[in-house]
Amino acid sequence: MARKHIGAQTVRLEQPPVIVGAAAVAGPVEAQGPLGHEFDLTYPDLTVGQDSFEKAERQMMIDACNLALRRAGIQQKPPAVDYFLAGDLLNQLITTAFSGLELGVPLYGLYGACSTFTEALSLGAKLIDGGFADRVLCAVSSHYGSAERQYRYPTEYGSQRKPYAQHTVTGAGAVVLASAGEGPRITYCTTGKVVDWGVADPLNQGAAMAPAAVDTIEAHLRDTGRSVDDYDLIVTGDLAKFGYEMARRLAAERNLYLGENYRDCGVMVYDTTKQNVDSGGSGCASSAIVTCGHLLKEMARGRLRRLLVVSTGSLFSPTSFQQGESIPTIAHAVAVEA
Amino acid sequence: MARKHIGAQTVRLEQPPVIVGAAAVAGPVEAQGPLGHEFDLTYPDLTVGQDSFEKAERQMMIDACNLALRRAGIQQKPPAVDYFLAGDLLNQLITTAFSGLELGVPLYGLYGACSTFTEALSLGAKLIDGGFADRVLCAVSSHYGSAERQYRYPTEYGSQRKPYAQHTVTGAGAVVLASAGEGPRITYCTTGKVVDWGVADPLNQGAAMAPAAVDTIEAHLRDTGRSVDDYDLIVTGDLAKFGYEMARRLAAERNLYLGENYRDCGVMVYDTTKQNVDSGGSGCASSAIVTCGHLLKEMARGRLRRLLVVSTGSLFSPTSFQQGESIPTIAHAVAVEA
Repeated sequence: MARKHIGAQTVRLEQPPVIVGAAAVAGPVEAQGPLGHEFDLTYPDLTVGQDSFEKAERQMMIDACNLALRRAGIQQKPPAVDYFLAGDLLNQLITTAFSGLELGVPLYGLYGACSTFTEALSLGAKLIDGGFADRVLCAVSSHYGSAERQYRYPTEYGSQRKPYAQHTVTGAGAVVLASAGEGPRITYCTTGKVVDWGVADPLNQGAAMAPAAVDTIEAHLRDTGRSVDDYDLIVTGDLAKFGYEMARRLAAERNLYLGENYRDCGVMVYDTTKQNVDSGGSGCASSAIVTCGHLLKEMARGRLRRLLVVSTGSLFSPTSFQQGESIPTIAHAVAVEA
Repeated sequence: MARKHIGAQTVRLEQPPVIVGAAAVAGPVEAQGPLGHEFDLTYPDLTVGQDSFEKAERQMMIDACNLALRRAGIQQKPPAVDYFLAGDLLNQLITTAFSGLELGVPLYGLYGACSTFTEALSLGAKLIDGGFADRVLCAVSSHYGSAERQYRYPTEYGSQRKPYAQHTVTGAGAVVLASAGEGPRITYCTTGKVVDWGVADPLNQGAAMAPAAVDTIEAHLRDTGRSVDDYDLIVTGDLAKFGYEMARRLAAERNLYLGENYRDCGVMVYDTTKQNVDSGGSGCASSAIVTCGHLLKEMARGRLRRLLVVSTGSLFSPTSFQQGESIPTIAHAVAVEA
């Protein structure tokens, strides 16, 4: 086993990289949700002042990056970071590509669907701890309008949605990781395996992703020797109401009891009883804006000390769905400690 | 600057990871090309015995992985590798997702369009040199049928193609990197920045990508202090005939003279004078199968000692093209030494 591996799926960072800056930007529905006041920037409508949803998403990613860089005290253009690790949900990662063009730093494009936030943090932390980078900028985004256009129906059709459907979070989150500085640190990264329990309904992402979330949480605890209670909070990325309950039950079947300290970003980001968001949020931005906008601030306020972020991704495509295939899923976990 | 960084875009691996196994599988057109005899497995038709092009592509990636693992002496199931780093051209990386499901090892999904081969080698080498992995499996694929369906017209339309259009390479390449063993080593990795000179014709990828290729080669030579002549061979990924000539000219304008030792995998993989492949090959598999199938074997035969592989990627999407945007591009370079 490699020197820093402490189990089949987990590495321990020897010199845990520091989160020296983070920012979350969000759309109008997210701004009206229970965490609305926490986001660093919100937009009054889905266009973000641009002439397409795709350009709006790009603007959000760039805004999140610039805010996170400013927090980190990085003002130069191009920014003094060694790498830009980013991903989004749009085909061929065009949000990432055009944001990378604007930023002008070496880019590694990543795709883990809605798990991309912790995929980026995990690889970024390793690049720093491995001696390859002093500072890394990680970012992800998603946008309700661009995602609906690509994955489902034009919203103008007004097609009926099932109760377990989810609402793609409009927003972007960015994190600056550094080899030194003030802030919480990334201590462990658990890399997920692809899991597929045969769910084939692309509107039922929560059910599809719950087994991957439980698998990765279990691997993390097994590899680190930690228990659920060692964390003040464990959050999954975007299981939403149904998937969240399912994850809790699946875990219990494996004698892994997720208590009050287990929550889901897709549930936290909206008030599903008042907002018209089906069973809750989904998208790369779900775990990113809840973590960057809210949880890291809770750490700074001293209300959280140990956090496990488990972003969850559904790796299907409209083509694989149309060809009758089930939905492969994945989850990556990153431990953040004050 | 981070310890292992030797310039703005390049790192030097302290304990250069070893390529302990590699394999290339290819489709029927590639099998008839000048390197046909070099590939480890070729298929008589585009279906690879599957009932869709998408499943055919997946089978190719899995075949390439299994062959590379066997070469590396890794026989277990799931294979004893710490990570699977992979990417492909299909939306949501479904080839990668389903291959990852089949393989059952921790996955980082990557997207750099046709630059993904060297993106994977670069991140894989860093994970090993950084102490996070002993063995990493890297793989990419592309498929003429699935790519045409997704990016262009159904081939049945028989739409006319421009002379500078390219033919997507059907194939997959896989590499097993290890911290120790026999084989050529990855010594330097140069990570590309996004480059966009305003080309907006998605059929003219070679022209769009040539500036990115030259940019990355220039950065590599500047950062390492090496010259073009320090390499027995420098190959770009898939510029094809027009892009290859353009890269040579662009480089010369910057006083960088690419000589006989500069070639392009998209030109090498086909005989463009006899095969009906427009100006040459494109796709993730272009640089992957030429490197895994041919160049690494040339190293083993003692005919090449120092090789620079510069996979080139065009980061546009059909949506960004339809919205009138130009084509952002990127290139990543990896030095391989016997």
